[in-house]
Amino acid sequence: MPAFRTVRGMRDFLPRDAERMRHVEQVSRELAQLYGYEEVITPVVESYDLLAAKAGEEIRKRMFAFEDLGGRKVALRPEFTASMARLMATKMRNEPKPIRLFSVGSLYRYDEPQYGRFREFWQADYELLGSTRPEADAEILMLTNDLLKKLGLRNYSFKIGHMEILRGILSQEGVGEEQQNRIMQLLDKKRWDEALTVVRSAGVSQNCVATLKKIFGTKGKEAFRVLKDAEESVMEYEKSVAAVKNLREILELTIKSGVELDVMIEAGFARGLEYYTGMVFEPYISEIEMALSGGGRYDKLVELFGGESIPAVGVAQGVDRIVLAMKKQRCPPKIAKEKKVLVIPVNEEYVAKAMELSSLLRSAELIVEVEVMARTVSKALSDADRRAAAYAVIIGPAELTEEKVVLRDMIKREQKIVEIKDLCKEILRRFM
Amino acid sequence: MPAFRTVRGMRDFLPRDAERMRHVEQVSRELAQLYGYEEVITPVVESYDLLAAKAGEEIRKRMFAFEDLGGRKVALRPEFTASMARLMATKMRNEPKPIRLFSVGSLYRYDEPQYGRFREFWQADYELLGSTRPEADAEILMLTNDLLKKLGLRNYSFKIGHMEILRGILSQEGVGEEQQNRIMQLLDKKRWDEALTVVRSAGVSQNCVATLKKIFGTKGKEAFRVLKDAEESVMEYEKSVAAVKNLREILELTIKSGVELDVMIEAGFARGLEYYTGMVFEPYISEIEMALSGGGRYDKLVELFGGESIPAVGVAQGVDRIVLAMKKQRCPPKIAKEKKVLVIPVNEEYVAKAMELSSLLRSAELIVEVEVMARTVSKALSDADRRAAAYAVIIGPAELTEEKVVLRDMIKREQKIVEIKDLCKEILRRFM
Repeated sequence: MPAFRTVRGMRDFLPRDAERMRHVEQVSRELAQLYGYEEVITPVVESYDLLAAKAGEEIRKRMFAFEDLGGRKVALRPEFTASMARLMATKMRNEPKPIRLFSVGSLYRYDEPQYGRFREFWQADYELLGSTRPEADAEILMLTNDLLKKLGLRNYSFKIGHMEILRGILSQEGVGEEQQNRIMQLLDKKRWDEALTVVRSAGVSQNCVATLKKIFGTKGKEAFRVLKDAEESVMEYEKSVAAVKNLREILELTIKSGVELDVMIEAGFARGLEYYTGMVFEPYISEIEMALSGGGRYDKLVELFGGESIPAVGVAQGVDRIVLAMKKQRCPPKIAKEKKVLVIPVNEEYVAKAMELSSLLRSAELIVEVEVMARTVSKALSDADRRAAAYAVIIGPAELTEEKVVLRDMIKREQKIVEIKDLCKEILRRFM
Repeated sequence: MPAFRTVRGMRDFLPRDAERMRHVEQVSRELAQLYGYEEVITPVVESYDLLAAKAGEEIRKRMFAFEDLGGRKVALRPEFTASMARLMATKMRNEPKPIRLFSVGSLYRYDEPQYGRFREFWQADYELLGSTRPEADAEILMLTNDLLKKLGLRNYSFKIGHMEILRGILSQEGVGEEQQNRIMQLLDKKRWDEALTVVRSAGVSQNCVATLKKIFGTKGKEAFRVLKDAEESVMEYEKSVAAVKNLREILELTIKSGVELDVMIEAGFARGLEYYTGMVFEPYISEIEMALSGGGRYDKLVELFGGESIPAVGVAQGVDRIVLAMKKQRCPPKIAKEKKVLVIPVNEEYVAKAMELSSLLRSAELIVEVEVMARTVSKALSDADRRAAAYAVIIGPAELTEEKVVLRDMIKREQKIVEIKDLCKEILRRFM
């Protein structure tokens, strides 16, 4: 049988990388707790119709979709929001609002594998349901900023826009939702000209095309100047004006709350997911071309899934992208490598005693590997070096008759005889 | 659009259950660290051929298998060991032995959903690779016992057997591997008579059938008595005798190590997975019919996957089964419900200040929910009760001009004015 490999686009995370992934996951979870987001777990396999409903054409056609053995059309979730909205529309419909939900796990998209983009990836997802207020949007921005900061990332900036700036114009011009979706997909991929062709074919006014062109170019880091420009450009489109105002409120609130956010406003910013209805954002660092996370407001999704009308805003933090960013910026994973103790019997006769002592040491929260290869002490000790063990406990007859063992300091290369009853204490003292 | 549901056999874990799942996962991870098992993450989607190779007919036909968009035959992993062996045979082949690996995640089998059995389930997997020694088997038993004990489970017992007792007989009688597999599948489902029919059709000796029948009945809690009976029964089958001896060594070692294991030896114990070659075990509690975990030795799998010959023993702890068992035995989840602070602005003008203060409190590791519904203070306070908030911080003009806020004790229903600079300290002091 030939050596098997991972399926194209799927990855193994070996110990060092897995540790980084779990670190980001754990910090995300702790942050969720601090903000009052309760963790839920939803399945990786969901009904195709649920996932396809508002994912957008691009994601829809890249889903891992198949029929299960019962003939159900299912798919591997390509994102979290559909599942969260489903939960909200069904099992959690009677919970008092607002509801804050957190979830973390793997997601699947059949994308062309490339640097930072894989067919299996991980997100930590936060959803704040029940509020239309700008402070809800601001909270999502704030916690995303908190997460990136806590992980040690620097110089990240938030690309921010609002779906209703463009959709407001198109709606008022009578462009139907499906065509709007098509236009948004193209804009998401920066295919401006093609998007304008679709716009023109929908029979819009001259003014509309001119306004859109202006909006595409309306961006920059001076948020309030850019928003003023945008507002002037969309003056004739009522919903777009409201969108700009909403975005301004969110940003003012964020800044007044003392959050130092480096923003890049893009009035023509579109995200491929069709469920967004308000503010949308993506944080970036200059070292990586892809967004580290993605979020926004989606006020219509829960009702679409059979629930009452529940406004919502959320963000999905790209766990593996963030790990990549941390590596690029050489952020320390901040996990102190714990010190390890090896327990080695001098021969077969002392194996049980070695296992017994290893239990004792572990009950003092020490990390212990017991020799399971039946090697000689000297061979096991040379291996101890490769395993970066700090201490070795050697168990032999001479010492054991007096309830003693040899404790060897692997760094100083010196050893002493220690009474078993003092062993934990002795090692813990040295680790201090 | 109708209300969507989870796909049959798939589950949502709402906050209380998700918390229990994460608790078991976290204790499993901490235990892995204490024993020197390094965490790896492998994909949920693997090549069908890899997963099918030694899974056994029963699991093989219940896999979620499909073609991806590139025409590759893939499947959702039904268990961890194949992926771990793949890793060992490829990316980790040059690591010094022994290698201890840990992984935790979701798995998929198209089983008929029933109490404790779902199509998506979770396991925490431990694999010890590189040693043929009984102390390696004993370590796996020991850590499984440690995990169940740490989680507060009581009165669990270990059903233990050894694959070579039966296979040793069948091999010596010339029964081919495929037929052996078929027989093991039937025995795993306790279909003894059918298994014997297959055995007979393979043209074995009279003695063989008699021996097998005796072995099926050789079980009990007095481990060494049962092993003695088993040894006598299989006297004429060399490999089976060696298997009984190996099992005795493992158990002696475990007991001499001071582990109090309640065992149930079953000489005719078979597990459905075809890769097992030695000791196999499953812990049970009387309240649930299904095994909480499953493990055993598999010395031939890594080489089958293209690596050198690496003996191995491992265990997969059933995370959701263990959660179920903990509920049945009313084990406290041991997660102290953290106390929560609500921050409420008296009106819109104070929202930014509310968000700023919530940040401040969170930096002191306090769990803080900020009011995002723009409700009146009294409405927000009544909601605070439902959310089991311990304190509310109310931000209004009178106090704010003097850099003060109102701190309300939600349990005692009393409030006082506190300087902002003392707020964290004051709340932390009260939480002590």
